[in-house]
Amino acid sequence: MTFQEKLDLAVGKNNSLLCVGLDSDIEKLPAKFKSDKYPQFTFNKWIVDQTADLVCAFKPNTAFYEARGIRGIEELKLTCDYIRTTYTNVPIILDAKRGDIGNTNRGYVKFVFEYLQADAITVHPYLGQEAVQPFLDQKAKGIIILCRTSNPGAKEFQDLPVTGEPLYKLVAKNVINNWNKNGNCMLVVGATYPEELAEIRKIAGDITFLVPGIGAQGGDLEKTVQAGLNSMKKGMIINAGRSIIFADNPKMEAEKLRDEINRYR
Amino acid sequence: MTFQEKLDLAVGKNNSLLCVGLDSDIEKLPAKFKSDKYPQFTFNKWIVDQTADLVCAFKPNTAFYEARGIRGIEELKLTCDYIRTTYTNVPIILDAKRGDIGNTNRGYVKFVFEYLQADAITVHPYLGQEAVQPFLDQKAKGIIILCRTSNPGAKEFQDLPVTGEPLYKLVAKNVINNWNKNGNCMLVVGATYPEELAEIRKIAGDITFLVPGIGAQGGDLEKTVQAGLNSMKKGMIINAGRSIIFADNPKMEAEKLRDEINRYR
Repeated sequence: MTFQEKLDLAVGKNNSLLCVGLDSDIEKLPAKFKSDKYPQFTFNKWIVDQTADLVCAFKPNTAFYEARGIRGIEELKLTCDYIRTTYTNVPIILDAKRGDIGNTNRGYVKFVFEYLQADAITVHPYLGQEAVQPFLDQKAKGIIILCRTSNPGAKEFQDLPVTGEPLYKLVAKNVINNWNKNGNCMLVVGATYPEELAEIRKIAGDITFLVPGIGAQGGDLEKTVQAGLNSMKKGMIINAGRSIIFADNPKMEAEKLRDEINRYR
Repeated sequence: MTFQEKLDLAVGKNNSLLCVGLDSDIEKLPAKFKSDKYPQFTFNKWIVDQTADLVCAFKPNTAFYEARGIRGIEELKLTCDYIRTTYTNVPIILDAKRGDIGNTNRGYVKFVFEYLQADAITVHPYLGQEAVQPFLDQKAKGIIILCRTSNPGAKEFQDLPVTGEPLYKLVAKNVINNWNKNGNCMLVVGATYPEELAEIRKIAGDITFLVPGIGAQGGDLEKTVQAGLNSMKKGMIINAGRSIIFADNPKMEAEKLRDEINRYR
């Protein structure tokens, strides 16, 4: 089963476009988890158990685990193993934003798809398709390319005019027209820029977008959903991290957000 | 002591612009190391001990260690600890090519500068200065931004004309003019493109370049050195990985390359 198929099943079964970002910063964990032998994993397990029937995917970000060295990487692996074996229908997106030359990217492929056995990864476009190819060759995996990111400084390079249109559009076009031969490409498009999201949807057909920026980053949900849906009223993986996992009641928060997304679909 | 100061000392003491890339792919290690408890670390120690007086820096690439999960990360840490404590004058560049939003990059800062205690890191420019700021704030560390990479597909985006000049030049200009307030920025410029290297040197004043692509990637050394030197006949960290570490005699190969670089200075 490919990542897209697994994703579609979860979207249908849980009636959800919501992805919960497991940005489990050790310093922000509730006190009761901090004394645990595996604080990040135990916290993640608690979040995952509450929300697995409300989401279309989980998305751990490697930075919050690497910050703790091998202890964090171990907890990241425990987290991926737990989700994969306990909630077999819910795919794991590793938000790693990797991007090296081709030969070297093979190492990252092993880390993400063999060691962690994740279903999808986020990658940088700057080195071009030839460099990203070892990721693209993983036909059953989702390769999610940064296109228009959600941060305030994204425009510094991404909005620059290249042969008459912003760079982010050219990234989208190259991915759609050339990189996507295995049908496994997706794009990262931030919720903080609904106009750009709508522009990219025009270019991108029904391809799936990973959409960060809702919640703590302040993206407008209604505009985002309306700008980003594809012709099948899906095609979006809408991520919320901190606003759910550090809420007083993560399950309630996830359910509320899932339902709000669905109202706008 | 800043990364630049540590680098300058090593350049002077070892009369070298050569950096050895510790791209210690477990599958390519000589057979005698593969049965070791710590094959990558033991191999790296063997390389480092032979070449520490011939180089200006060592550059492990994270991908080759992450490929093995926590075992690899442990060997990467052992390697960094060994270099830092045994060869105190030789800086460590972690070739990690990271790049997330600002909040998240703090996790990578902890990994690279607190956990591994490296002296410098490579980062992606695509998300802009605002995202890279947590790295730039590390005043004593080297922040080496991808500008014109050494791979064949680099031109897909990096050479695109943006307001009349290629994107890579604009990256260089923004870094030089805006990002480098702490004087800790450097640029990655591949040896496989000496003309682009010369163009970037014109923009970049005396700033230091990390120059991969010599050796296995086929860059022309004489053209590279002549195109990239700054006004002090240095300002380049010329990296060779596979062609040295997997040579029959790594010490001899490193010495030969160091001396050849010096002939062209």
